[in-house]
Amino acid sequence: MSQPQKSWKRKLHEIIYEADTRAGKLFDVILLITIIASILLVMLESVKSIDEQYHAFLNISEWIITILFTIEYIIRIVTVKKPIRYICSFYGIIDLLSTVPKYISLFFGGIHALAALRALRLLRVFRILKLARYLGASRNLVNALKASRAKIGVFLFAVVIIAIILGTIMYLVEGEENGFSNIPRSVYWCIVTLTTVGFGDIAPQTPLGQFIAAIVMVLGYGIIAVPTGIVSAEYTSQSNKNPEKEGNSEPFVHLNSQSCPNCTAEHHKDKAKFCYRCGENL
Amino acid sequence: MSQPQKSWKRKLHEIIYEADTRAGKLFDVILLITIIASILLVMLESVKSIDEQYHAFLNISEWIITILFTIEYIIRIVTVKKPIRYICSFYGIIDLLSTVPKYISLFFGGIHALAALRALRLLRVFRILKLARYLGASRNLVNALKASRAKIGVFLFAVVIIAIILGTIMYLVEGEENGFSNIPRSVYWCIVTLTTVGFGDIAPQTPLGQFIAAIVMVLGYGIIAVPTGIVSAEYTSQSNKNPEKEGNSEPFVHLNSQSCPNCTAEHHKDKAKFCYRCGENL
Amino acid sequence: MSQPQKSWKRKLHEIIYEADTRAGKLFDVILLITIIASILLVMLESVKSIDEQYHAFLNISEWIITILFTIEYIIRIVTVKKPIRYICSFYGIIDLLSTVPKYISLFFGGIHALAALRALRLLRVFRILKLARYLGASRNLVNALKASRAKIGVFLFAVVIIAIILGTIMYLVEGEENGFSNIPRSVYWCIVTLTTVGFGDIAPQTPLGQFIAAIVMVLGYGIIAVPTGIVSAEYTSQSNKNPEKEGNSEPFVHLNSQSCPNCTAEHHKDKAKFCYRCGENL
Amino acid sequence: MSQPQKSWKRKLHEIIYEADTRAGKLFDVILLITIIASILLVMLESVKSIDEQYHAFLNISEWIITILFTIEYIIRIVTVKKPIRYICSFYGIIDLLSTVPKYISLFFGGIHALAALRALRLLRVFRILKLARYLGASRNLVNALKASRAKIGVFLFAVVIIAIILGTIMYLVEGEENGFSNIPRSVYWCIVTLTTVGFGDIAPQTPLGQFIAAIVMVLGYGIIAVPTGIVSAEYTSQSNKNPEKEGNSEPFVHLNSQSCPNCTAEHHKDKAKFCYRCGENL
Repeated sequence: MSQPQKSWKRKLHEIIYEADTRAGKLFDVILLITIIASILLVMLESVKSIDEQYHAFLNISEWIITILFTIEYIIRIVTVKKPIRYICSFYGIIDLLSTVPKYISLFFGGIHALAALRALRLLRVFRILKLARYLGASRNLVNALKASRAKIGVFLFAVVIIAIILGTIMYLVEGEENGFSNIPRSVYWCIVTLTTVGFGDIAPQTPLGQFIAAIVMVLGYGIIAVPTGIVSAEYTSQSNKNPEKEGNSEPFVHLNSQSCPNCTAEHHKDKAKFCYRCGENL
Repeated sequence: MSQPQKSWKRKLHEIIYEADTRAGKLFDVILLITIIASILLVMLESVKSIDEQYHAFLNISEWIITILFTIEYIIRIVTVKKPIRYICSFYGIIDLLSTVPKYISLFFGGIHALAALRALRLLRVFRILKLARYLGASRNLVNALKASRAKIGVFLFAVVIIAIILGTIMYLVEGEENGFSNIPRSVYWCIVTLTTVGFGDIAPQTPLGQFIAAIVMVLGYGIIAVPTGIVSAEYTSQSNKNPEKEGNSEPFVHLNSQSCPNCTAEHHKDKAKFCYRCGENL
Repeated sequence: MSQPQKSWKRKLHEIIYEADTRAGKLFDVILLITIIASILLVMLESVKSIDEQYHAFLNISEWIITILFTIEYIIRIVTVKKPIRYICSFYGIIDLLSTVPKYISLFFGGIHALAALRALRLLRVFRILKLARYLGASRNLVNALKASRAKIGVFLFAVVIIAIILGTIMYLVEGEENGFSNIPRSVYWCIVTLTTVGFGDIAPQTPLGQFIAAIVMVLGYGIIAVPTGIVSAEYTSQSNKNPEKEGNSEPFVHLNSQSCPNCTAEHHKDKAKFCYRCGENL
Repeated sequence: MSQPQKSWKRKLHEIIYEADTRAGKLFDVILLITIIASILLVMLESVKSIDEQYHAFLNISEWIITILFTIEYIIRIVTVKKPIRYICSFYGIIDLLSTVPKYISLFFGGIHALAALRALRLLRVFRILKLARYLGASRNLVNALKASRAKIGVFLFAVVIIAIILGTIMYLVEGEENGFSNIPRSVYWCIVTLTTVGFGDIAPQTPLGQFIAAIVMVLGYGIIAVPTGIVSAEYTSQSNKNPEKEGNSEPFVHLNSQSCPNCTAEHHKDKAKFCYRCGENL
């Protein structure tokens, strides 16, 4: 490939994959708006009364967005050095799934499930934001959640076992005539109650059932203290270890939005000249 | 303007805008009672059975309060040195909106929406209380909330994205026949469930839907730990930095209730002789 | 009064008011059982099907308990040195209210409201337990709650104002046809939603209403973090100040259950020979 | 008993009771799958439509599992040295209850309650997992919960008393015509509301009732802060005392899965040669 062409590719790569240049930032803002618009379209299309009235408008808008996303997808493949790696990456698949459903609808008509699949486009938002600034702000939070993972796992396991056992008891006590028609349904009710959601679509009718339900509620009310306590304590200890300077862009917090044109690796240091993963010139 | 008149204006300004003199305190107490009475009037008026029976009484009371508020509004404009600044300030607009709806009803009849607009009068409560004593008591809390702002922002953003994606899945699983008639409605259901509110106006009917709902609930139950943990940890660290002396009125906690007659700036130091913002004599 | 009689009064006083002697403990246990039995009676009496079947039994039991409580009340008056002070104290009034309703029913028939008044007997439980051991265990908790009082006050005030303003907005948006028939009812709905209770007896039907409701829920979900954070932080700081030895009865935790026969003051030191309030010999 | 036979018993004991050898681990995995399968069977059997269609399959699977559990139960009795102690232990009873109901159904037909009793098999899961790794991870959590026990007890006691008193008041205010048909039912409603579950099967209709309900909700919303605060604070102090090395298998965290063949005591040290409880050779 000739040098000028490479430089042309480089420029496009910078615009699409990075957010350090003015053009890159503009591209990200436009993409963000397009994604949100496309999500709104998917939502509105699912509302019958709106779909009937504005079907043509929604359809055309959807085609425009699909074509825009397709062009973006192609440019992403062209400008990256290892396209296969991009295509198989998480965001590569999401990018593909953002465009495909509309094309399939050409041949098979608007399949219900496929149309809604487009809502996955929302996941693309994470890429744009790159969330660098906020990730910095919430690094301690993420660390705290990681440190609490095992404990919260044990906790959720205990909740599920409690729900199955109490659900079975409620099935025996209330029985089919009061809506507890089988054990899975009773377990569902028990989770609804333990988590203090309380839909009320199923509710105990017998005095004994209401008594057990009261115990379940108080139990759920007490159990909620456990994950909260864990996260609070872990977060406090994380904050003590890494006191953050809020609202300050220290180098070690600052995550560069550059992305390697070769391997799409991100989070390079500000003055990095070579990709830390593949050694490519940045 | 002559000196005596200025002094007369000054006195009124002190009574209305400040709470350090006996007259100023009395004025604030009366205003507080009037505001609460006016809110009760708006509430009672909206109850049909009460409105029918006591319409005349409610109407007259409302007129008395409106006129009182109008007089207060005019005095506030007259006694302040820069009336335009006051009129355009947040409280200036609230003060105006507290009086206007009733006058409009004279010409156009009782417009439903306008009548309820009067409930905004409640916002005036914040001005009177000046909340100095309590602000002192909750300064650490406010600092903790400010420090957690960015993190809680990321958290709420994540909640909304989870709600949209899970809502779309529930729409596909449950479908219109079970009340999940479109995606916005499903997302609404998902937020109702994630936040553990659980109205029960929409509830999953299929076993698969109930299974996903159970996951949503446990997720919501776990997610609630995150903001709590953040606030707890930030508040603890704030308390360690600024240990508060509860129930003690140290100078640095004490917020003077004086307000500059020129620019309406507040929170002057106790012995301040000039406004810290515009240099006006206090 | 002669010495032997005084000693007889003293003994009764020790049995009834204190829990240090064997007889005093026995009395407290019997009283506890009687109170719980009387509460169960009040509850069962309110269940129609049970009341119809066992009316005679419930009535006789109720009379026995009432007479027992009356005797206890009279002895309490006789054995205490300043009966007026006892009669006018909080527990004196509760003790009286535990007996009076049944006597009134003799003359006026079973008045509904009076019968249920007997549930107030439950408050007597607090006296018996004297909760000394547990109060020791939860002293830090009580201190933490006291320290958080002002902050939680500000917080609840803010919740009520948010509920009134959002309730009014919902009233305008949803209107009477969707159950938001007046502002008080809308405010009630708003509190139900903010606190994540979510009965579902009133639920928004319009898309805009559901959108605002979603905001209210997320707000309520976030707000719950605040009191929790306050209590956590205060409790942590209390625990750091007064590290408790759990399950250990150190003198400074131990609250003597003796009560002054003259002025009914409690919480005397273990070896105290005179009442700290009135100087009476203990 | 001859040496070879004892060695044969020893081997079986190692496989069934321990998880250190390869065979022991395999046995545990198979047992775990069998238990989960058996729970799924119990659940599916309770769903009428499934039971009708696949009755034969479910019945045969259930018999296979029951026989497997019976064989396991017998081996457990044979290989342990003090069978009586095992039979009377908690897990011994659970193991027996996992097999008995199916046999009884042979003679008396499928008794509803007995069938569901099989759900107790779930409790067996705890034994297999031995949860050693996770228990290590959550040791501080368990300590924190133990330290908070007394305080949470006082707290729950207070919640129940509040629920009874407020429930009685609601019964008086709302009365039978609005679903508050008796005091126990009102107390049930009060617990549903205090814990923010909010089924909505019973909901106040009168304005006064809704006002009291609003107070109950805000109260419940505030009360939830208390257990959370306790657990957070205790957990923080536990973490300060015993800083855990997450994801690290230090000797003092590592709980050996061996179990004494004589007395079934567990948690032996890694290099222990004799049971710490009965002195048996390990």
